[in-house]
Amino acid sequence: MNDPLLARFYGVIPAGGTGTRLWPLSRAAAPKFLHDLTGSGSTLIRATYDRLVPLAQDRIMVVTGQAHEHAVTSQLPELGDADLVLESEPKDSAAAIGLAAAILHRRDPTTIMGSFAADQVIGPVDVFQEAVREAVHAAATGKIVTIGIKPTYPSTGFGYIRCGDGLGVAGASHAAHVVEFVEKPDEAVAEAYVNSGDYLWNAGMFVAPVDLMLSHLRANEPELAEGLERIAAAWDTPQRDAVMAQLWPSLPKTAIDYAVAEPAAAAGDVAVVPGSFTWDDVGDFAALGRLNPASAAGGMTVMGDGARVYVDEASGIVVSDTRRVIALIGIEDVVVVDTPDALLVTTKDHAQQVKGAVEALKAHGEVDVL
Amino acid sequence: MNDPLLARFYGVIPAGGTGTRLWPLSRAAAPKFLHDLTGSGSTLIRATYDRLVPLAQDRIMVVTGQAHEHAVTSQLPELGDADLVLESEPKDSAAAIGLAAAILHRRDPTTIMGSFAADQVIGPVDVFQEAVREAVHAAATGKIVTIGIKPTYPSTGFGYIRCGDGLGVAGASHAAHVVEFVEKPDEAVAEAYVNSGDYLWNAGMFVAPVDLMLSHLRANEPELAEGLERIAAAWDTPQRDAVMAQLWPSLPKTAIDYAVAEPAAAAGDVAVVPGSFTWDDVGDFAALGRLNPASAAGGMTVMGDGARVYVDEASGIVVSDTRRVIALIGIEDVVVVDTPDALLVTTKDHAQQVKGAVEALKAHGEVDVL
Repeated sequence: MNDPLLARFYGVIPAGGTGTRLWPLSRAAAPKFLHDLTGSGSTLIRATYDRLVPLAQDRIMVVTGQAHEHAVTSQLPELGDADLVLESEPKDSAAAIGLAAAILHRRDPTTIMGSFAADQVIGPVDVFQEAVREAVHAAATGKIVTIGIKPTYPSTGFGYIRCGDGLGVAGASHAAHVVEFVEKPDEAVAEAYVNSGDYLWNAGMFVAPVDLMLSHLRANEPELAEGLERIAAAWDTPQRDAVMAQLWPSLPKTAIDYAVAEPAAAAGDVAVVPGSFTWDDVGDFAALGRLNPASAAGGMTVMGDGARVYVDEASGIVVSDTRRVIALIGIEDVVVVDTPDALLVTTKDHAQQVKGAVEALKAHGEVDVL
Repeated sequence: MNDPLLARFYGVIPAGGTGTRLWPLSRAAAPKFLHDLTGSGSTLIRATYDRLVPLAQDRIMVVTGQAHEHAVTSQLPELGDADLVLESEPKDSAAAIGLAAAILHRRDPTTIMGSFAADQVIGPVDVFQEAVREAVHAAATGKIVTIGIKPTYPSTGFGYIRCGDGLGVAGASHAAHVVEFVEKPDEAVAEAYVNSGDYLWNAGMFVAPVDLMLSHLRANEPELAEGLERIAAAWDTPQRDAVMAQLWPSLPKTAIDYAVAEPAAAAGDVAVVPGSFTWDDVGDFAALGRLNPASAAGGMTVMGDGARVYVDEASGIVVSDTRRVIALIGIEDVVVVDTPDALLVTTKDHAQQVKGAVEALKAHGEVDVL
């Protein structure tokens, strides 16, 4: 992509969250982004990284938990030490993305960062990249630019972005002002949103000049911003680990949506580029069924290397993380997830209730399998 | 039971069959009779033995596969070496029961044997024992006596016994002539049988003088009878193992029903004592659900020591043969059987299809888990 503005672009990949609704496949020790959930041969974080390389080359930073250091570096061996931010404890997205902004600002205050979660499935890749390129052009005019997804159904599981007038920026012909971000709606409201044509799904993707990110963060979360800037000042020095260890645990915990995106939108500083690529945050096992075509007779999706699955009058999805033989007989839309220490049996319709199971298991002290 | 006739009684327990419909719990290496399927604390074979002790004391013989020698002797440590018949290969029920008859006839030709499969669930035990006592009295008049079960529903899964006039034997007031044995009927016929009051379920229980058993066997299966009598002649001598090893593999394979019971019935030599005890051959996982009360909220039967099961809006049966956490969400009448190397997920309605799964796995060479 021969676009001089991209020389200012830096990719940031927040890799957090355990993907509780995908338990027992996804869990604290092996969260969603470390799995290949599409049968592509790549983990989600590797695929996220690869999507950014044509835009950012090696200017890509990852923010993740200390526990995942080894897993992430073995997935991304080319990742430089200074571009791997390891959190000693989760501090939510404002701290994660804010620290990346602060470090990048120290290195070059003209940087335009683009933040993309490590556990999303996107395609086609070139359509995504074209949207990011537009977002970089829009951001260069002094905007925090989100990439919104054209809704394909009236989802009640996502927040929405209400789009306003076009931005009129060269190189970003589809960019528009953001009127507001709105929370997850009920079904009737979601339908009205989709029918209006004015709303996009909020996929949590931000492209923004780092100085603009920081100025909004300073205005809304001054304590957080100050801590992050002190860590950033030490980052590319021998004091990095010591200062990080000292300051990180006491940082306030809040979401980037509240700390930056919503107040910035209210101030008229946020734009949106619509993405017409497909996007899935793989929120539950029903999503896994959508993303992976049925491979066995009768509509059963079978995932897992060397799976030994026998299917008779059954459909749904089976994830095999063991070498056990699995026989499934006479259940439609079943979800079976077979791991060495935990087994889930449910249906696609009940996929969202998996989160409740994890919470109940935690309450009962079965933490070894969470 | 102070009944002088019982001094002639010898219990025989054929312990064969793998209980394919209970796979993967029951399998070649650990067949149904070696499991505690009722939560009683006893395996089925141990419970079968214990039911016979008050009638037979230590005069009990077991016929099983060589592979189960250790499992059976550890279940039944009091079983004498000469009362354990080990088959080098399965030869069906005529050979198993016929060999027991031939051995017992050699020891004492006046013996009345009673053959009771090792994998049935029966209660109350004293009602069963009273039926056997009546059967011994009827058998002593020169009859092969079967104990038929009063049907509780029009089963299409069992054969039936058509009862005739009363036998008029002292000590066996309920005994009747058997008109004929009939094969598993269709539903309409089964209903007619049950409504008539003339039919009992054939549970495969026989009480008979050993000489009468052998004379019918000789008449119908002379080659088999000759082989069995040669083995029996060597049985209580040092040549037992050698003769068994030499002759057993070439014996004809047939069921006791064809070799003895049906022709004997046609000859008017068979009587029946009705059993009003409950009887279950634990034919599939639906039976397991019937035999074991629900132990978790919402109607889930949980079997297995130390099972770690989480249930949310699910009912049915889960058999845990591992220490894995099992979460079951939103499936009614589910059947989950979790073993170290194989997992079954089905419903009670499809419990009979488990046999087909085992056959398909065998055809695909997955024999390590069968």
